[in-house]
Amino acid sequence: MISCGDTRVLCSATIEEKAPPFLKGSGQGWVTAEYGMLPRATNSRNRREAAAGKQSGRTQEIQRLIGRALRAGVDRRALGERQIVIDCDVIQADGGTRCAAITGGWVALRLAMNRLLKAGIVTTDPIMDHVAAVSCGIYAGQAILDLDYAEDSEAGTDGNFIMTGAGRLIEVQMSAEGATFSRPEMNQLLDLAEAGVAALVRAQTEAVQCAG
Amino acid sequence: MISCGDTRVLCSATIEEKAPPFLKGSGQGWVTAEYGMLPRATNSRNRREAAAGKQSGRTQEIQRLIGRALRAGVDRRALGERQIVIDCDVIQADGGTRCAAITGGWVALRLAMNRLLKAGIVTTDPIMDHVAAVSCGIYAGQAILDLDYAEDSEAGTDGNFIMTGAGRLIEVQMSAEGATFSRPEMNQLLDLAEAGVAALVRAQTEAVQCAG
Amino acid sequence: MISCGDTRVLCSATIEEKAPPFLKGSGQGWVTAEYGMLPRATNSRNRREAAAGKQSGRTQEIQRLIGRALRAGVDRRALGERQIVIDCDVIQADGGTRCAAITGGWVALRLAMNRLLKAGIVTTDPIMDHVAAVSCGIYAGQAILDLDYAEDSEAGTDGNFIMTGAGRLIEVQMSAEGATFSRPEMNQLLDLAEAGVAALVRAQTEAVQCAG
Amino acid sequence: MISCGDTRVLCSATIEEKAPPFLKGSGQGWVTAEYGMLPRATNSRNRREAAAGKQSGRTQEIQRLIGRALRAGVDRRALGERQIVIDCDVIQADGGTRCAAITGGWVALRLAMNRLLKAGIVTTDPIMDHVAAVSCGIYAGQAILDLDYAEDSEAGTDGNFIMTGAGRLIEVQMSAEGATFSRPEMNQLLDLAEAGVAALVRAQTEAVQCAG
Amino acid sequence: MISCGDTRVLCSATIEEKAPPFLKGSGQGWVTAEYGMLPRATNSRNRREAAAGKQSGRTQEIQRLIGRALRAGVDRRALGERQIVIDCDVIQADGGTRCAAITGGWVALRLAMNRLLKAGIVTTDPIMDHVAAVSCGIYAGQAILDLDYAEDSEAGTDGNFIMTGAGRLIEVQMSAEGATFSRPEMNQLLDLAEAGVAALVRAQTEAVQCAG
Amino acid sequence: MISCGDTRVLCSATIEEKAPPFLKGSGQGWVTAEYGMLPRATNSRNRREAAAGKQSGRTQEIQRLIGRALRAGVDRRALGERQIVIDCDVIQADGGTRCAAITGGWVALRLAMNRLLKAGIVTTDPIMDHVAAVSCGIYAGQAILDLDYAEDSEAGTDGNFIMTGAGRLIEVQMSAEGATFSRPEMNQLLDLAEAGVAALVRAQTEAVQCAG
Repeated sequence: MISCGDTRVLCSATIEEKAPPFLKGSGQGWVTAEYGMLPRATNSRNRREAAAGKQSGRTQEIQRLIGRALRAGVDRRALGERQIVIDCDVIQADGGTRCAAITGGWVALRLAMNRLLKAGIVTTDPIMDHVAAVSCGIYAGQAILDLDYAEDSEAGTDGNFIMTGAGRLIEVQMSAEGATFSRPEMNQLLDLAEAGVAALVRAQTEAVQCAG
Repeated sequence: MISCGDTRVLCSATIEEKAPPFLKGSGQGWVTAEYGMLPRATNSRNRREAAAGKQSGRTQEIQRLIGRALRAGVDRRALGERQIVIDCDVIQADGGTRCAAITGGWVALRLAMNRLLKAGIVTTDPIMDHVAAVSCGIYAGQAILDLDYAEDSEAGTDGNFIMTGAGRLIEVQMSAEGATFSRPEMNQLLDLAEAGVAALVRAQTEAVQCAG
Repeated sequence: MISCGDTRVLCSATIEEKAPPFLKGSGQGWVTAEYGMLPRATNSRNRREAAAGKQSGRTQEIQRLIGRALRAGVDRRALGERQIVIDCDVIQADGGTRCAAITGGWVALRLAMNRLLKAGIVTTDPIMDHVAAVSCGIYAGQAILDLDYAEDSEAGTDGNFIMTGAGRLIEVQMSAEGATFSRPEMNQLLDLAEAGVAALVRAQTEAVQCAG
Repeated sequence: MISCGDTRVLCSATIEEKAPPFLKGSGQGWVTAEYGMLPRATNSRNRREAAAGKQSGRTQEIQRLIGRALRAGVDRRALGERQIVIDCDVIQADGGTRCAAITGGWVALRLAMNRLLKAGIVTTDPIMDHVAAVSCGIYAGQAILDLDYAEDSEAGTDGNFIMTGAGRLIEVQMSAEGATFSRPEMNQLLDLAEAGVAALVRAQTEAVQCAG
Repeated sequence: MISCGDTRVLCSATIEEKAPPFLKGSGQGWVTAEYGMLPRATNSRNRREAAAGKQSGRTQEIQRLIGRALRAGVDRRALGERQIVIDCDVIQADGGTRCAAITGGWVALRLAMNRLLKAGIVTTDPIMDHVAAVSCGIYAGQAILDLDYAEDSEAGTDGNFIMTGAGRLIEVQMSAEGATFSRPEMNQLLDLAEAGVAALVRAQTEAVQCAG
Repeated sequence: MISCGDTRVLCSATIEEKAPPFLKGSGQGWVTAEYGMLPRATNSRNRREAAAGKQSGRTQEIQRLIGRALRAGVDRRALGERQIVIDCDVIQADGGTRCAAITGGWVALRLAMNRLLKAGIVTTDPIMDHVAAVSCGIYAGQAILDLDYAEDSEAGTDGNFIMTGAGRLIEVQMSAEGATFSRPEMNQLLDLAEAGVAALVRAQTEAVQCAG
C-alpha cells in the first residue's frame, strides 16, 4: 500500500512461471501491470468498469504506462522466461494515481524479485535501478509538485515524469490543459521532478527494508 | 471495512437523489449493491473482471443477493424516491465473502440513513431492523460456523443464512457439495446460524456507534 | 418436453466425448446445463438474449443451478471423462421454470445415460438417484405448491427445493419477498415440497418408460 | 407452428403501439423479425447464440430477410404508427428454415392484423397479399423443391424465392455452390418455385381459418 | 483501387501459408474477404464500426458474399492448403460498393495468384475464370445499369448479379423495394447485367496487365 | 490526404450542429477525433478492429491525443455549441502515423472552420494558431527527425512533440525504449522538433491555399 498525500494505491506482484507467447524461446521475461480504481475512490462515485463491460481508454493507457515504466528498470534476460504481473488498485484517489502506482508497483516488483533471488530461481538480480514517478504542473502561474485533484483540474500545464534512481529519464509526458507552455516552463517542471523522484527513491528503499 | 476471520471487505454507500426508472412516481426508493474482488484477494491471482470485459455469473449472483437482502430490512416508502448504492469490494478473501459483504453493507447503509435523517431529507427512519448473514456448513461430519476457504472447499454441505436482528429469516440457501443432506442436519445448521447472526448484530451496533 | 401447469420446457441432452479442461486426466465426467426462454414464452414479449448480446444474470444463475442439481445425482467417476450438456428451453412460462427445467432435464439425462449403457460405452450406471425440484411459497397466508406466475409475484415467501428420489436435500433456496418468515413457516414449506417431489419422481419414471 | 418436411418453426407476432424512431411522425408502421434456432434443432448441437454473446452473421442476414419479405406484402400506411415483431424460432431444422420462417411468419402477421381489425384499431386491412417462400435447388442434375438438409449440402445450385399470392416476385436469391449455373437452369428453378409457392399460399389460407 | 462512377474501393490480397482449421489435411485452400467503409465514404458521416464495437449485419453479409463469389472462380485444390484474404475498403461510396469490391477483389486475387505461380509455390493456376459483379435496377420504370446512390434509393427493384468471364451465373440477388416485380422485368435486368459484366471483364484484364 | 515519407493518412472533418451533452448550455464547442488504420496499411496485415469487436488501447490512446492536440489550438467559445469530428484513416503506414494525423487533421479542421466562417455560422475565427506534430528519436546514437518504421523500432528513445505555429508546446511525450535518456539528449530532440514543426506549418499553409 503506497500513500502520496490522500492518494492510496494497493500494489501487489504475482509471479507466473510462463512468459507471454511472443517471448517463447527468447530467454527473456516480461513485466506487465493491471490498474483499477474502486468506484468510491473519488469523491463522487465512478461507474464500475467490470459492470460497464470494458476498461476505459484511460485505464488501458495507464496500465500500459505502468508496465512500460517498470520494464525500463529490469534486465529481462536476467529474469528469464517468466512474467511478473503488478496489480495496482486505487483505494482512494486525490491526484497522481498513475505516479503512485508506478512508485508503489516498483516496491512490489522489488519484493517479488527478492523472493525469486532468495529461492535461487533467479541468480542475477534483474533489477537494474529504482523506477519512480512524480506528477507536477503549473498551477496559478507556479510550478508545483504532486498536484492534488483540486489543483490538477485547474492546472495550466500538467506533467508526469518517470525516472531511474540515477536520475535518468524513462518517460516524460507534458500536456497543455487550456494554455500552451514554453521551454523555460518545461525546464522548471523538470527540475522540480528530479527533486521529487529523489525523495521517492529514498522512501522506496525504506519500504523494502520494512517489508524485508 | 468489515473483517470476518481473514476476510476483509470494503463497504461504502452512495446516495443518489433519483430512484431507478421503474419506480418513477411510486414514492418508493431502492437499495442496490455492486460487488467486486481485487485480483489478489485470494491466494492465487484471479482474472480482473474489467479486463475480461464482463462480470462473472458468480459476481452478478452475489450482488443481486446483497441488494435483495438489504432491501428486506428497509421501508422503501420511508426512504422516498432515492437510491442507495452499496459498493462491496473484497480486499482479502478467506471464505464467506458474500456474508461479510451483507453484514458490512448494512453498516454502510445504516450510516447513510443516519446522514439523511440528520440532514432532515428523510424524516422517518427507513431501517426496520438489522440485516446480517452467516455462512456455515458441515465439515468432517460436524456443523461449523464461518467456514474458512480450506474448510469451505471440502464441506459436504454449505449454507448461507440471512436474518433480521429479531431472528426472522430473509434468505436461506443450502447446497449439497458432494453429499446430499437430511432435514435434521439442516436444522442443526439453522441453530448455529441463529447464534452467529446474534453475535454479528451486536458487532454492527458497535461499529455504527464508533463511526457515529 | 416437460409440462407443469402451463409451463412447458423442452429438455434435451447432448453427449460430448470430451470432459472440460479442468477434469483432464481425472477419470471423471461432467454434467452442465444451458437455459433459454423464447421471447414469447411469457405474456408480454421479452428481449431476445442473443440480440441483447449477453445472457442476463438471472439466466446464468438458473443454468448454474440446473447443472449443480443434476450433478448431485450423478456418479461422475462412473460416467468417465465425457460431458453431458442439458439444454432447457422454455417454450411457455407460467411460474416455476427452473424447477421444471431440473425435473425435465433429469429425464433427458436418464435417457442419455441409457444410450451410453446400451452402447456399452459406460458399464456402471452413473445415475445414483432421481433429482427433481418443486417451487412453493406462502401466498395469502397459505403454503402452496407450484405457484403459477400470478401467485408467485404476490407470494410473501418463495422457495425452491431440489431433492433426490430418496427424499434427501440437494438444494434449498428460500427468499422473503416483502415479508420475512419464521422457522415454523419454513418447515411447513418443506413438508409440502417433500410431497411434491415424490409425485414428480413417479412422473419421471413414467416418462422414461414411455421414451424407452 | 409451421412444419415443412422435418423442419418445424414456431412463429408468433407481437404488436407494439410504437413505431421505430425513424418513422416518428410519418404515419407509417413497421414489420420486423427476429430469428433464432434452438441448440438442438439440428443433428449435432449448435452453440447457443446468447451464450456466445452475439448473433451470427447468418442469423442477422436471415432476420433482415424475413422482415424485408413480410413488409413487401404490407401497406405500412394502413397499419399506422405501430410495429409488429415476428419471432421465428426453429425447434427442428432439416433445410429451408428461412423459407419456413417467412411462410409461417406471414400467418402470424395475418392473425395479428385480424386482431387489430377486429378491435377497430386498424380500419383498412394492411395486408395486400400473401407472402410465401420456397427453397429449391439443382441436386444430382435435377431441379428439386424443398431440399432437405442432406440434399441441400450437396446441391450444385441453391435458390430461395419469395413471392406474393399473385405470383409476383419479392426476392430472388440464387447461389452456385461448387458449380456455376446457366440461365435455362435458372428458369427451370423459377418454374418449380412458382408451383411451390402456390401450394403454400393455399396452406396459409387454411391455417388462418383454423386459428380464426 | 477500383473506381466505378464515383465509388472507389481499395482492394488488396494477403497470402497466408495456413488454411483455416476446417480444411486441415484436406489439401484445399480458402479465399475469404473482409469489407469496411471509411466513416466519410458517404455524404453524411457513418459511425465507425470499430468504435461501435461490432460489424453491422450489412457488413457481415457483404463480406460473406465477396468471399463466396471469389471462391466460385477458384480451384481450391490447385491453390493448396493456404488462405488468401481479400481486404476491400470503401474510400468513397456512390452505390454498388459490393459489386465494385467483388470486381476489384478479383484483380487483387489474380495478382496474388500470379505471385504464387511466379515463385513456384503453386504450379497449376488456381483461377478458373474471371469473377465480376454488377448492380442494376428498375428506376422510374426503366432498367438501368450501375445505379448511383440517388437512383438506388428510389429504385423499384434492385439486383446484384455475379458472373464468370464465360457468362455463367454465380449469384443472383433481386429484391423488390416498394414494388414487386414480374419475370419479364427480371429477364430484362439479366440481359443488362450480362452486357455490364462483359465490359468489367475487359477492364479487369487491362488492370492486371498494367499491374504486371 | 497528408503524406510524410511513406506514411499516408486520409483526414476529413464533419461538422455536427450539436455539442456533446456535457457542454449543453455552456456556449462552447468541441473538437474530437477518430483514428483507424486499414488492415494492409503496414507491411504485414493487421487484424481489422471492427472484426475484433473493439478498438485497441493504442487506437484509443491515439485518438484521444489527436483530439486533445487540436482542441489546444481552438477557441471553443468562438466555435459555439457545435462539434467537429476529425476522421484520420491511415492508408499506408511507415512510422509517425499519429503525428501525420494531427498535422493533417489540422488542415481538415482549418477548412471546416473556413466553411463555417464563409457561411456566416461562425463570425470570429475559432482557430488561434496552427497545430502540428513531429516524431523524432535517437537512432544509432543520433537524433533523427521523422523516424520511419525500421528506425523507429530500433530507436533508443522515441518522442512526439506537438506545437503551435508560434513554437509553444502543447504536448511532449518522450519514452525510453531499451535505454534511458539524459536531459541533454532530451534538449537535442526538442531542437530538432522545433525545426520540423516549422516546416510542417509552412506545408499546412500551402495545403489550405490549394484546397481553398
